Order: sequence, then C-alpha cells, then structure tokens
Amino acid sequence: MRYVLKIAYDGTDYAGWQCQKNAVTVQEKLEEAIFSALGQNIRVTASGRTDAGVHAAGQVCHFDAENITVPPEKMPDCLNRFLPPDVRVTDGWGADETFDANRSAKRKTYCYSLYVSLREMPLKERYAARVETAPDLEKLQAAAKLFEGEHDFKAFCASGSSVKTTVRTVYEVKVEEAQTYGGRDLKIYVTGNGFLYNMVRTLTGELLELASGRRTEESLLQAYATGKRELLGKTMPAKGLTLLQVEYQTKN
Amino acid sequence: MRYVLKIAYDGTDYAGWQCQKNAVTVQEKLEEAIFSALGQNIRVTASGRTDAGVHAAGQVCHFDAENITVPPEKMPDCLNRFLPPDVRVTDGWGADETFDANRSAKRKTYCYSLYVSLREMPLKERYAARVETAPDLEKLQAAAKLFEGEHDFKAFCASGSSVKTTVRTVYEVKVEEAQTYGGRDLKIYVTGNGFLYNMVRTLTGELLELASGRRTEESLLQAYATGKRELLGKTMPAKGLTLLQVEYQTKN
Repeated sequence: MRYVLKIAYDGTDYAGWQCQKNAVTVQEKLEEAIFSALGQNIRVTASGRTDAGVHAAGQVCHFDAENITVPPEKMPDCLNRFLPPDVRVTDGWGADETFDANRSAKRKTYCYSLYVSLREMPLKERYAARVETAPDLEKLQAAAKLFEGEHDFKAFCASGSSVKTTVRTVYEVKVEEAQTYGGRDLKIYVTGNGFLYNMVRTLTGELLELASGRRTEESLLQAYATGKRELLGKTMPAKGLTLLQVEYQTKN
Repeated sequence: MRYVLKIAYDGTDYAGWQCQKNAVTVQEKLEEAIFSALGQNIRVTASGRTDAGVHAAGQVCHFDAENITVPPEKMPDCLNRFLPPDVRVTDGWGADETFDANRSAKRKTYCYSLYVSLREMPLKERYAARVETAPDLEKLQAAAKLFEGEHDFKAFCASGSSVKTTVRTVYEVKVEEAQTYGGRDLKIYVTGNGFLYNMVRTLTGELLELASGRRTEESLLQAYATGKRELLGKTMPAKGLTLLQVEYQTKN
C-alpha cells in the first residue's frame, strides 16, 4: 500500500529535509513519527530536498507500508501526535505504485518573501529576508519575465551539484506587493518543472539586481549562455524561501 | 534629556513587557541594553504593558538620561547592539518633559491575526491563532461595528484588574481577509483610546461568536450593561495579538 503525505514545516531549526549525520532534519522527524505510530522502520521519498532553513507549506512524500490498518486520510492525525509542533502532516491519500513523489512531480511552486526596511523587524525576520531598498513593483514584474521559459540555469546552481542537466523550464515568476504597518512586503512566486540547488534564492537575488538596474538583461543572457555564477546577483538567505506546492497529474 | 523609543518585538519567548521577578520580560532586556550602552541604570516607561506572548510592531517608551552624548536618532543603533534579535529599537527621537509615553498616548491600534484551517499550519502558528471555521467577511465586518463607540468594557477585562474606569472608546474595528496557499487569513484591527487587560483578545473571541450567530447583539448589550464576563465568547490566545501603533498628538 502506497501512502502519500502533504507536509508543512517551519524550517528554522532544521538542517533541511534530507536525513544526514549529526544534524536534525525534517525527514528524520517524520520517519521517527512513522516508527512511533506504526512500529515500522520506513524510508520516505519526498518531491525533492529543501535546504537548511527553508520552509514548506506543501512538501509531498510517499512511502510503502504493509499490514497497516490506518486509512490514508487518517494518517495526518495518526502521525501529528508524534511530530514536533514545527512539522505537520496536513493531508494524506493513497496512490498506486506508479506514483512517485519525486519522479511524478510535474510542477513546483516556491515563494520567496522579502521585506523592505532600514532596520530589522523582529516579526518579519523569521520568514522573510530584509532588503534596505527595493525597486518599484512594475520594474520587478518586468524583470521577472526574463526568467520565464526554458533556460540553462547552471549559473544559478551552487557548485558541487551533480545533476544530469541544468536545463529547467520556469513557467511563471509572479511578484506581489503588500503594504503593512512595518512597510513594504514583497513575495516572489516561482513555478517551474524543477529547480536546482539554490536556484530560487539566486533567481531572487538576480531579480533585485535586474529591476534596480545594477545588472542588465545582457549579463543575464550571458549567464544563461556561459553558466558563470559570478555574472549573477547574490544568493538570498534560506529563511525567506518556502516550498508552497508540488503538483502531480493525478492529485496535487 | 527625554528620549523616546519605538520598539518591535516577537513576544513568543517573553513574559510580557513589564519587569517581574523570575521571568524574562522585554522591558528588562531593554533596560539591560541601556545599561550596557550608556552605563546608567534607567527605568523606562512604556505606552502600556503587553501580556505574556503578545507581540509589538510599534510599542513606544520614554526615559530620561543625563550626561549622554548619543543623539536620539542614533539610539536605535546604539541599543540594538545589546538587544536579543527578537527585540529591536526601530526609531528614536527627543521630547520635552511634558511628553509621557503612557499618559500622552491618544490612540492605540492592535491587530489580532487568525487563520482558518482544520489542521495546525506550522508557518502560521507563531503569529496567529487557528480557528477551524470562520464566518464570511461581510458578517465579521457587520459584527465589528457593534464594538465601536464608547462602552463600558468591564466584561471584556480579566478579573483582578484595578483600573479606575472600565469605560473606553473604540474608534474602529476593521476586518481584512487574505487568501493564501494555506487557506484564509483574517486580520482584525482595533483602534481605541485605551485598552483593558485582555480586552482585544476577548473582543476577537466575541466577534467570532457574533458573526457566526452563536451569540447576539442583545447578549453583547447585556454584557456592556452588566459587566458579566460569562456573557461573552472566549479570550483568544496571546500569540495572535500585536500592538501595531501608538499615536500621540505630536509625533507617533
């Protein structure tokens, strides 16, 4: 029986999704909860890793379990009893064995959150990165278009990655602005067929560079063509990034 | 020389604003920072207390200090070096001795944040209270009007309070809704000339009761008339409450 779970987490206190030695990860907490609830040592497969400090509102994973009487829709309540408050299973359903949380994923959407302020704001610091200034919404939205389409995102990727191809399709980069009592908040929604390590964080840094005029479309095109990381803006901090949604053909 | 400071804090890990024995408070952290930065033991006076777990984006306080060369506008940078990351001085200015952060306050605005979800959402839990269902925005906005004006808010006040009068004027109760990937978020902005202990948290609980039809305008009027706490809905949790702004005649 293949179970699929949707998971939300505050990544602040975790060394990312994937299990690793000498660090606390979300996957480890989830597998511990499965062991506590079901009495089985089970490895789960997620749609993809999230890095240390990155959050998720809609991570998806699957696992197989035999001889279990818990129906998939009861899995959230069953597992949440054994999870820390900053990790929650928010949905559960069954799937056949052709479904793979990683390989069957068609689209992913990340949100990068920024706030504009000369000083740190404690109520915004946890889930957003601070910038002292930011361009107009119209300029950000115009620059956002330059990332859409199929491109070789090698330059956006942290070195040391060993993926087969660095070509990805970005379907949409949408920028929204909200005025709050503390100032301007910006949210950058990026939807694509897959993302390289650090790609959304580097894309956001480059978006700010392009919209402010500190870098140009020409240098971005050169980055696509050459894969040279130094042609792009800085990688933004992990805490501003949230994996919002993973979409599959059957059920998201 | 009278200094005025604007302060923002994440109240999660504090036993409220006001100094007390055997508990860590925001006032204590601020006074420790003043001692570290200026070498003087100085007591500050805030616009009012905030309870344990309540947040602030715009708390205001004042203090007097002699023989100090730091100009008021440099006070944020001067003190922030000695404050924990969840407390920040965001503005500083000078005032004459007639200004009192508490007594000169004309209007205060609080925001109560709710999110609607059948399950806990880790990324929303820190700064908002969860409700499983909530009425339509129009119903909430209609019920919000019932709190506006001058009323005796005795019934809204936690017992044991020793204020002279429990009559307060609420200038505005504004309800805003946002759709997010995780569902509906509600923000209730309450502006008044002053607030009793627990008043905004009880008002929010009662607002949900009124808008849902579980309680009526008649029972609210009876609560105003009799001061009986049991006529009102429950007191909402501290974590959803933020002191947004304190307004003074001269400068807010």
